Amino acid sequence: ALHELLQDYHFADIAEIIEELNSDEATFLIQSLESDLTGEALMELDDDVREKILSRLSPKEIAEELEELDTDDAADIIAELDDHIQKEVIDEIKDEEHAADIQELLAYDEDTAGALMAKELVQVKETWTVAGCVREMRRQAENVTRVHSIYVTDKEGKLTGRLSLKDLLTAGEKTKISDVFIPKVDYVTVHTDNDEVARIMQKYDLDAIPVVDETGVLVGRITIDDIVDYIKEEADKDYQMAAGISQDVEADDSIWQLTRARLPWLVLGLFGGLGSVYIMQGFEDALSTFPILFFFTPLIAAMAGNVGVQSSAIIVQGLANDNVKGSLFNRLLKEVGLALINGTALGLLVILFGFLVGQDQLVSITIAVSMLSVIIVAALVGTFVPIILDKRGIDPAIATGPFITTSNDIFGIFLFFYIAKLILGF
Amino acid sequence: ALHELLQDYHFADIAEIIEELNSDEATFLIQSLESDLTGEALMELDDDVREKILSRLSPKEIAEELEELDTDDAADIIAELDDHIQKEVIDEIKDEEHAADIQELLAYDEDTAGALMAKELVQVKETWTVAGCVREMRRQAENVTRVHSIYVTDKEGKLTGRLSLKDLLTAGEKTKISDVFIPKVDYVTVHTDNDEVARIMQKYDLDAIPVVDETGVLVGRITIDDIVDYIKEEADKDYQMAAGISQDVEADDSIWQLTRARLPWLVLGLFGGLGSVYIMQGFEDALSTFPILFFFTPLIAAMAGNVGVQSSAIIVQGLANDNVKGSLFNRLLKEVGLALINGTALGLLVILFGFLVGQDQLVSITIAVSMLSVIIVAALVGTFVPIILDKRGIDPAIATGPFITTSNDIFGIFLFFYIAKLILGF
Ligand SMILES: [Mg+2]
Ligand SMILES: [Mg+2]
Ligand SMILES: [Mg+2]
Ligand SMILES: [Mg+2]
Ligand SMILES: [Mg+2]
Ligand SMILES: [Mg+2]
Ligand SMILES: [Mg+2]
Ligand SMILES: [Mg+2]
Ligand SMILES: [Mg+2]
Ligand SMILES: [Mg+2]
Ligand SMILES: [Mg+2]
Ligand SMILES: [Mg+2]
Ligand SMILES: [Mg+2]
Repeated sequence: ALHELLQDYHFADIAEIIEELNSDEATFLIQSLESDLTGEALMELDDDVREKILSRLSPKEIAEELEELDTDDAADIIAELDDHIQKEVIDEIKDEEHAADIQELLAYDEDTAGALMAKELVQVKETWTVAGCVREMRRQAENVTRVHSIYVTDKEGKLTGRLSLKDLLTAGEKTKISDVFIPKVDYVTVHTDNDEVARIMQKYDLDAIPVVDETGVLVGRITIDDIVDYIKEEADKDYQMAAGISQDVEADDSIWQLTRARLPWLVLGLFGGLGSVYIMQGFEDALSTFPILFFFTPLIAAMAGNVGVQSSAIIVQGLANDNVKGSLFNRLLKEVGLALINGTALGLLVILFGFLVGQDQLVSITIAVSMLSVIIVAALVGTFVPIILDKRGIDPAIATGPFITTSNDIFGIFLFFYIAKLILGF
Repeated sequence: ALHELLQDYHFADIAEIIEELNSDEATFLIQSLESDLTGEALMELDDDVREKILSRLSPKEIAEELEELDTDDAADIIAELDDHIQKEVIDEIKDEEHAADIQELLAYDEDTAGALMAKELVQVKETWTVAGCVREMRRQAENVTRVHSIYVTDKEGKLTGRLSLKDLLTAGEKTKISDVFIPKVDYVTVHTDNDEVARIMQKYDLDAIPVVDETGVLVGRITIDDIVDYIKEEADKDYQMAAGISQDVEADDSIWQLTRARLPWLVLGLFGGLGSVYIMQGFEDALSTFPILFFFTPLIAAMAGNVGVQSSAIIVQGLANDNVKGSLFNRLLKEVGLALINGTALGLLVILFGFLVGQDQLVSITIAVSMLSVIIVAALVGTFVPIILDKRGIDPAIATGPFITTSNDIFGIFLFFYIAKLILGF
């Protein structure tokens, strides 16, 4: 009865229903419904929810669900299981080809096209006729949810081109594939980086891209729906990283998960703050003569932080989108120029404020000049830290947010007092 | 010669070549090459580059490029032109149906499915046979780059379902469409919000989605490549917004553009900083007795800022992904709980630090307790400001970064000194 009720639902909607249930109810639902309804829904669940449900299912039950999934999704789910259960689950999969395909996919590196691709695709040989091709396609297409492109291979299985469904519909039955296929096709290898796959598919507006091995043999296909998910996840992760959240968490995750994701960055910020305390103690002679300088420290820290985050965000994004061009020296000039413009504008505002509240003019100018220097240094730090990280192969996205803010707080406050001391001589 | 050289290039690659040229060279290239090569490349250019080139082309030349573009892209380019040129360009388009389609698209609101969709699609009537359908499709498909789905309509043009190319390939020639088509099809209306379109296409893994008008008549189609671009652009914008960059800029934009995007938020931060100066002047009695409190202000500001940004980032993302569930009261409890855990951990570190440097214990405890209060308030501000903005229909993404940091700097420093005063009584 429940099965009839749910069978018109899309798996993504079934997943939403499952997420509203507790683990026992969800497990019961998955066990009692046919896997053709629940397999794909499992894939759409939040990681935490899926983990709980899978831990309550037997290897045989998990295998039943996986039979209904494409190889890419099945491999992703298996990869989440403990090592010893992985083997049991694979052994329980009845379709041996499916099991072998999944096992092949498990071998690829996590961040590569090999781990993103599925084995499901439609391929035809150059030597076939259109009629033979349609016949063979009907057979292959049974295992393929959506056909997208048809890939053409030579007799060794090497990718040589593609065939659009449109061409197939318009060509005569006896036409040879070699006469109608398009010998140019975008592809990636199993080792191509995920980001590069996403970039290529976005640039060339592809719905699917074939994947070849080192020898050029067609081994899989990546579809755009998985790339959409990947782009969205990466963007969400980068956004969180910039906000000082180090793990992939959601608003509805547990307090404990949220603490683990957030506390480390706060501790970093705390050490930065204690560093500032230490620096100011070094300048405490100014307390009696120029106490106003100490009132300006949050302003200096804020400016250093904001400028640094702005510079680093633009660079991090530019590096990700591959549009940071030109020499390092030009970039340096530009950042200094930008910092000079912004810093001068802000400095004039500080002097104006000093004038309005009747502050000593030399003090106002000192604050403005120190702030300008702080802004220039902050912009340089914000620009070059991500570039250096990137050159060393570290994801520069980690360098926005708390990391830059904290370093700039310390640098900024030291520089502020140091320059103030030079001018005011306390 | 140049035409032959470039004709094997994808339009996205031609666009990259054009971006390397100066405006005169680029304009010359566009004028001298056939529009079938350059039309789509124009669409891929950076807005600024395209604007410069279009300003050098005559309405007739622009119209020639637009003839080669799908209606959605053509409409987007026309929308960027000045009003009086728009009309001239449309008048110069020779294909009257194309011109009328473009004009129809220009009428829709910028953030809606109407503005995202193209008029190019393949539609068949329920009453046709498969053979008639294939014949008609061949005709229609000439104008459609990729077929994706075939949409089925009734005699009034109302969307009633879809036909997969796979089914069409496998069905007999004389079969009626009404016997093989899938009567269930996801669709949006011309007024559906862009974000909702993206959400639906991602959720249901769609390559294309049909768009209907108020009466259910099929009027257009949105393809996933445009949604991929949309998702990427929105993510980039949100990332920049969180970093205090208010306009869509790139690393290679001019200093002037970058200043306009960055200075406003820095001015906001400056006013926040001046607010802190004012607050601390109110507590200057403590200067002589507890100067250490003033050394801690950057730390307090950093904690308030970081906690606020973390809380707001999670909520902003949760609101965008539609996974902020449960009552406001529960969310409040959770944020307070989280802030208590993090704040206590950080407070203990502050006390430990005080112990190590031989600081007065009461002062250490005071700082820890004040900081804990600041953290709790900062978390609440970070959580509720985005929720309130969202309820009022304002994009909550604006509330991360400098906005939250600045408010929390002021609140935080006031609260810190206020509580310190209560405990230490200066
Ligand atoms: Mg089941
Ligand atoms: Mg995988
Ligand atoms: Mg694209
Ligand atoms: Mg997939
Ligand atoms: Mg999927
Ligand atoms: Mg990344
Ligand atoms: Mg041209
Ligand atoms: Mg548009
Ligand atoms: Mg999806
Ligand atoms: Mg389009
Ligand atoms: Mg496009
Ligand atoms: Mg948004
Ligand atoms: Mg700060």
